[in-house]
Amino acid sequence: MPDSKTVLPDYFVDDGSDIFAGTHLLVDVWDARNLTNPEAIEKSLVRAAEDARATVLNGHFHSFGSGLGVSGVLLLAESHISIHTWPERRFASIDVFMCGKCNPYDTLPEIKKIFSNNLTISASKRGLNPAFSEGK
Amino acid sequence: MPDSKTVLPDYFVDDGSDIFAGTHLLVDVWDARNLTNPEAIEKSLVRAAEDARATVLNGHFHSFGSGLGVSGVLLLAESHISIHTWPERRFASIDVFMCGKCNPYDTLPEIKKIFSNNLTISASKRGLNPAFSEGK
Repeated sequence: MPDSKTVLPDYFVDDGSDIFAGTHLLVDVWDARNLTNPEAIEKSLVRAAEDARATVLNGHFHSFGSGLGVSGVLLLAESHISIHTWPERRFASIDVFMCGKCNPYDTLPEIKKIFSNNLTISASKRGLNPAFSEGK
Repeated sequence: MPDSKTVLPDYFVDDGSDIFAGTHLLVDVWDARNLTNPEAIEKSLVRAAEDARATVLNGHFHSFGSGLGVSGVLLLAESHISIHTWPERRFASIDVFMCGKCNPYDTLPEIKKIFSNNLTISASKRGLNPAFSEGK
């Protein structure tokens, strides 16, 4: 994502080619470690959010039992980060949606450091409506 | 999604063609109404979750100010539902991720009823790893 994006008054962004709400990353994490401790997972994702200069509004992380998976969400002023873990599969699904000036790709170094380098990532521009870009 | 899917002991699902963690819908909502009241939005999304027979663990919904957008998340035993609204654009981004027996498409009638029929939907099978399906 170019750093030259412009945040419009209604917090949609203009990256020079499109006008849209923000970028939503779906991150599948394989060969993952550190998948069972909800407090540690929350701290890691708060650091990831801070690395993207996002503002955390609320966090809730739930353990499904000792040694079992964790589900959690950070609500951000710029959207959210979620995680769901399957320790039996050494798998976690993370999604990072950020609008405004924040760049969700800036969360990835912390995610790699804590969980795994083996990521499958898909990116969607949410709220992409070609009509908005007409006449630019 | 076929109703014949099987939930494996570790809560991955087998839909007959793939083994994966669950289906993640990204739902962009256009021409939307009812975008500014966090309590009403939470109630609507709880109803949508219940329509999919999901179990709500926690909810947090935040208003950015009177008449302004709302961000919120329902954490589910089966993953999560999130929403972020831009009333100035009559736009909302919703995502519905559900694993286990739940079918995220069952949330759509309530979403259409409350917000808009004008939805742009993309679906991802999270945790889709062809290696899991080998030898089926």
